Amino acid sequence: MTESHFRPIGTRIGILGGGQLARMLSLAASRLGMKTHIFCPDPLSPAFEVTPHRTVADYEDRDALARFAAEVDIVTYEFENVPLATAAFLAGLRPLMPNARALAVAQDRLAEKRFLADAGIAIAPFAPVGSLGDFEAALGEIGIPCVLKTTRLGYDGKGQRMIRSGADAMPAYADLGGTDLVLERLVPFEREISVVVARAGTGETRAFDPAENVHRDHMLFTSTVPAGISETVAEKARIIAADIAEVLDFVGVLGVEFFVATDTTSPALLVNEIAPRVHNSGHWTEAVCLTDQFEQHIRAICGWPLGDPARMADVRMVNLVGDEIEAVADMLEPGDAPHVYGKSQPRPGRKMGHLNRVTLRR
Amino acid sequence: MTESHFRPIGTRIGILGGGQLARMLSLAASRLGMKTHIFCPDPLSPAFEVTPHRTVADYEDRDALARFAAEVDIVTYEFENVPLATAAFLAGLRPLMPNARALAVAQDRLAEKRFLADAGIAIAPFAPVGSLGDFEAALGEIGIPCVLKTTRLGYDGKGQRMIRSGADAMPAYADLGGTDLVLERLVPFEREISVVVARAGTGETRAFDPAENVHRDHMLFTSTVPAGISETVAEKARIIAADIAEVLDFVGVLGVEFFVATDTTSPALLVNEIAPRVHNSGHWTEAVCLTDQFEQHIRAICGWPLGDPARMADVRMVNLVGDEIEAVADMLEPGDAPHVYGKSQPRPGRKMGHLNRVTLRR
Repeated sequence: MTESHFRPIGTRIGILGGGQLARMLSLAASRLGMKTHIFCPDPLSPAFEVTPHRTVADYEDRDALARFAAEVDIVTYEFENVPLATAAFLAGLRPLMPNARALAVAQDRLAEKRFLADAGIAIAPFAPVGSLGDFEAALGEIGIPCVLKTTRLGYDGKGQRMIRSGADAMPAYADLGGTDLVLERLVPFEREISVVVARAGTGETRAFDPAENVHRDHMLFTSTVPAGISETVAEKARIIAADIAEVLDFVGVLGVEFFVATDTTSPALLVNEIAPRVHNSGHWTEAVCLTDQFEQHIRAICGWPLGDPARMADVRMVNLVGDEIEAVADMLEPGDAPHVYGKSQPRPGRKMGHLNRVTLRR
Repeated sequence: MTESHFRPIGTRIGILGGGQLARMLSLAASRLGMKTHIFCPDPLSPAFEVTPHRTVADYEDRDALARFAAEVDIVTYEFENVPLATAAFLAGLRPLMPNARALAVAQDRLAEKRFLADAGIAIAPFAPVGSLGDFEAALGEIGIPCVLKTTRLGYDGKGQRMIRSGADAMPAYADLGGTDLVLERLVPFEREISVVVARAGTGETRAFDPAENVHRDHMLFTSTVPAGISETVAEKARIIAADIAEVLDFVGVLGVEFFVATDTTSPALLVNEIAPRVHNSGHWTEAVCLTDQFEQHIRAICGWPLGDPARMADVRMVNLVGDEIEAVADMLEPGDAPHVYGKSQPRPGRKMGHLNRVTLRR
């Protein structure tokens, strides 16, 4: 159901998840005069530091969910792995934005690929793998090189095995088999880009400029804007992202990752995956856009007019991982806008903050 | 004492005062991974909505102040009328930035004018008024037109009477007499500007571009950047602001208001008043500067490198007063960045939020 109801200042926004995305959403909501209530099972959640309203409980705890719903006006989330039963339960009590369908599609790679293919969006060829027999058939159909992925709970390179030659095939299956998998053709690509798009309940969409993403250790390392693509490709990416939001009847901010194909036998842009939330590759918007992705999400779910996503400068976002964060003050160069997530423990591989390195147009 | 000690992420910053300036300081501190604790007697303080750490107590409550100090690493404030005994008490327990001297100077108009005059800063001629005899002598010395002001607790036009002719004199004194006053010459000026400057414990200073300020009903209405002044005058204003910060051995962000004199018999720039804190006329920095005044203050008091105050676009900040705030979503034009303070009651004359109206450089 499309939700376009206007929410006045003082609206109480419930957020599922207490990580850095919830924290940044809460900061943006506060700027618009909204109140936020964070629901997260981890008592050390960084988002608990930016609002006095919290619930510490499991996502399956119906009593806690009902109390949470009673204390908020609308509900949103910072991660796509919200249990669908939780989403359905909350949606019965309060408007849930984005809707549960976006969660269902985004938390299962196979559902996601089928949704995108059905919507006519270009993606890499894929085949479902439920058994060793499926796997062998899929290898024949998809070809090598390819990637074997779990359908659920994969992020930052977890739950993926690259198959570059026949010798990689059985070890990959041995590592990941026993759960639902999907095999995906490795389409040659020259770069990875992403678009963050907002859609309002009215159907209006506004997309930020595409960012060019570089990964390190399977985790986003930098997002650079402008991306090294033509304006034609950039506009095409914005349109695809908006089309996906439209088909999902999405309200809020959606991240769409693309491969820019190298060879001309593939479409120029292949969607890699979607995230029904603010996105790490959109953190640059905070430093240089008239409206950033966090405020845009809050505007969308509150039925406010969407803001202008135009940017005022060029920028590179650099993720700060693990104990890099402890030296952040020493790393600051003129023009850097740092963001530190306030996590209690800088574990290796944990995203702890980011730097937006801005280049002024002189 | 100059305080330039480096404070790591996770530093607990105590803020005296719970209004919109404390709220915006807290949001900026959170972006840098700091924790904030708000001390304010008003249980409905808007800043209480952006951190879980609060003390609701009077500023004279020594037990509450001691407990507050024990829970924070450093202390700052959002308003210049912190009782000096409170400031001295806290400064004995934790580093207080900006220092108590800045408070003493800024909370008494006569002390402020004497301080500025002693520092060689150009200001309008003034005379202290402690009695009717003083007043009559001061009128002769300062001349008409002039302004009679209380030395303490004046803001947004409160505690001021304009004397445009001899007939205004005795009614003005009748209204305000009985407390310490100061009489100030009304120097003809073509515009009012202000500069927000940051000073680090190392002595480094960084000033934002001057804003041109327009008042309505004795309250700041708009701040526009760039101001309609030459770069020579702008640079002179930045230098004067930095000089004031230097003489005060100031650490943090300081607001300096100026008159730009019309006639050439006065210096081009006369300081009107100073505020030892982030300033309403600096709210535009949030929308268009690489580092805004709130982050700059937190960087300064935490011993982090000061950020780049350069701006990416032209901007006009418009204050939203009283029930104007309820229509904020309807007022939004493309390019507007709104900030709503989350105050519980939109009383007439109460600052409820602001809009930053940005003009992109195309």
